Amino acid sequence: MAAEPTTHPFPHTASLDDDPAFALHRGGKLEVRSSVPVRDAEDLSLAYTPGVARVCTAIADHPPLVREYTWTSRVVAVVTDGTAVLGLGDIGPAASMPVMEGKSLLFKEFAGVDSVPIALACTDVDEIVETVIRMAPSFGGINLEDISAPRCFEIEDRLRAALDIPVFHDDQHGTAVVALAALKNAARLVGRPLSDLRAVVAGAGASGIAVSKILIEAGIGDIALSDSKGLIHQGRDGLNGPKRAIAEISNRSRLTGSTEDALRGADVFIGLSGSTVQESCVAEMSEDAIVFALSNPTPEVHPEVARRHARVVATGRSDFPNQINNVLAFPGIFRGAFDAQAHTITEGMKLAAADALAAIVGDDLTADYVIPGPFDPRVAPAVTSAVAAAARTDGVARA
Amino acid sequence: MAAEPTTHPFPHTASLDDDPAFALHRGGKLEVRSSVPVRDAEDLSLAYTPGVARVCTAIADHPPLVREYTWTSRVVAVVTDGTAVLGLGDIGPAASMPVMEGKSLLFKEFAGVDSVPIALACTDVDEIVETVIRMAPSFGGINLEDISAPRCFEIEDRLRAALDIPVFHDDQHGTAVVALAALKNAARLVGRPLSDLRAVVAGAGASGIAVSKILIEAGIGDIALSDSKGLIHQGRDGLNGPKRAIAEISNRSRLTGSTEDALRGADVFIGLSGSTVQESCVAEMSEDAIVFALSNPTPEVHPEVARRHARVVATGRSDFPNQINNVLAFPGIFRGAFDAQAHTITEGMKLAAADALAAIVGDDLTADYVIPGPFDPRVAPAVTSAVAAAARTDGVARA
Repeated sequence: MAAEPTTHPFPHTASLDDDPAFALHRGGKLEVRSSVPVRDAEDLSLAYTPGVARVCTAIADHPPLVREYTWTSRVVAVVTDGTAVLGLGDIGPAASMPVMEGKSLLFKEFAGVDSVPIALACTDVDEIVETVIRMAPSFGGINLEDISAPRCFEIEDRLRAALDIPVFHDDQHGTAVVALAALKNAARLVGRPLSDLRAVVAGAGASGIAVSKILIEAGIGDIALSDSKGLIHQGRDGLNGPKRAIAEISNRSRLTGSTEDALRGADVFIGLSGSTVQESCVAEMSEDAIVFALSNPTPEVHPEVARRHARVVATGRSDFPNQINNVLAFPGIFRGAFDAQAHTITEGMKLAAADALAAIVGDDLTADYVIPGPFDPRVAPAVTSAVAAAARTDGVARA
Repeated sequence: MAAEPTTHPFPHTASLDDDPAFALHRGGKLEVRSSVPVRDAEDLSLAYTPGVARVCTAIADHPPLVREYTWTSRVVAVVTDGTAVLGLGDIGPAASMPVMEGKSLLFKEFAGVDSVPIALACTDVDEIVETVIRMAPSFGGINLEDISAPRCFEIEDRLRAALDIPVFHDDQHGTAVVALAALKNAARLVGRPLSDLRAVVAGAGASGIAVSKILIEAGIGDIALSDSKGLIHQGRDGLNGPKRAIAEISNRSRLTGSTEDALRGADVFIGLSGSTVQESCVAEMSEDAIVFALSNPTPEVHPEVARRHARVVATGRSDFPNQINNVLAFPGIFRGAFDAQAHTITEGMKLAAADALAAIVGDDLTADYVIPGPFDPRVAPAVTSAVAAAARTDGVARA
């Protein structure tokens, strides 16, 4: 049954539906269905009273059974406060809902993962943390989404500490996993180990910091981040906590100044800032430079311009080669975590996801193919099994 | 795609699945699916980035559009704290989930209403209220479920005052609507107006108080409630707030003593207490007595015993005539509220639901058929349109 309104409540907005995106969104994009048959009174007496009471009693007596006899072990809450939605910024929880529904749709379509969008009417860190903890019995995982930095870091850290289910801020780790996978293949293409490469990351928000951290874990030679005030280094005053923390493990050559300064001779540029990089700066990078201009919808440098000087160019867009798209990671990561009944998502699971993604490219590697496309059917199964295996290796699996 | 675990995590419990209720519950009972097509990259570019950004921006600029372009206007949160689950009592949020999933399943199967079970890990009234308010941007209605009395009354009152979406405690009002419908038909059968009848309600919890209130609104002659300490009257000490409030509008003849005392000569008995009523007490009721022994799974008096003395007998069970089952009410009530885009559920909408339910019986009225069965396909459409019409009459509809 469709559940659309019987009348059109805003007739003056009907013309919005001339845009196919609005037409598609009318009435929303999700539905909740029974996954078991309910054909007659007998089915109902099993799925609901009186049969359900026996299942409830069993769970009350033996709490781990909740993972077997409810959907909680396989449903993700997609949680936002609407403060950093796409490139639109702080548009609030209601206006964020189309993105959150879209995320749920991607979870289901790409990896069969059920999820529920939860947009919160609070932005205080303590309030978000306590709210998610209170609703946690209903879910098997928490995907944090579009929460602005630096609050997103504390929220994720505290929820990870408080809950025994996977908590994953996709804007950080989804981007990080896919960027690492692409960079591994780009490095392979240019014939250099990661440990040889010097990288510059423009942007020290959620994704900039997470990408830098995973590249450091993966053994990148050096990496420097910049924000609107220039390069981040240990000597800089006024850094917030997350930036101070990343300053301690990055920029070992103590570069100061601007992004452009750091790009001279650099091997890798990763843009996650919404800023602009001039062609001349790309030209000053090292031979076989690698440019990931990931801001959407406008990359830091147009990919065709970057390609004049760089060996490998990737963007966040679907209309150019090498799309760095989170959808390559998060569906399979949660599906793998659920398959293994992991109680958390470890660094090892993220690195395994990146390796699995990179491996799909295999011998087909070219400058225009360092990462699989989002509709490659091999992606979710490969990520799923790599993540589940890593969960078992890391000792966080229940199954 | 099925999302069941790939291995059986609790092999020692596999034998539980010999019970078909457990077998049906394995892996849970719900799934979240896309309600729009996602066949290719073009669909995805409308449902997700970049197309979704235009929809988000439109909602940010014109907030009421959220009701048109997201599922929030048609999705119910089924909220519990697990403190009063079925007849099982305070079994906690995790163990309540099979019931909440069942409720979601009934919403969908009976009226096409999408809903999400939210079991909360908090029981403090303030915490429950603030948590639901914080998650409210994600939902178009709140169905409170299995929250113990008297907290449930304050929680519902405060949420109704705070939110501009329907808030409905089904244990109260679902039961009340169906009981009123059945009693209207029972009164018609015995040829007496409601205003002639004197009723006794055993149980002053959520459902006992709500049933009494709706019968008073509907014009019952008199009604007295009892709890474990006997009849509730204005002179009794130590009543909690909700019982004090109901004492002021019920028991106008100032009966004191026990349920049994009040039953002498009474026309109607409604059991919502889990207690027991002796056959001799039923025998002492008036001629053409009406007995609704609604406790589950064990009615206050066995229906066949009651039937020896009473003209009409109803229970909560499916294996006897006249089942008073909430599923007759809540799916159509929310569907009607959503169709009218009502911002609340009024007393008029509940009374209209009861009238619509009662009217379905029509000329087929007999002592064994005072209320339609749960699988009668006329029920949800009749309740839906009556409730939507009443919302418009009451001036709470947006559509």
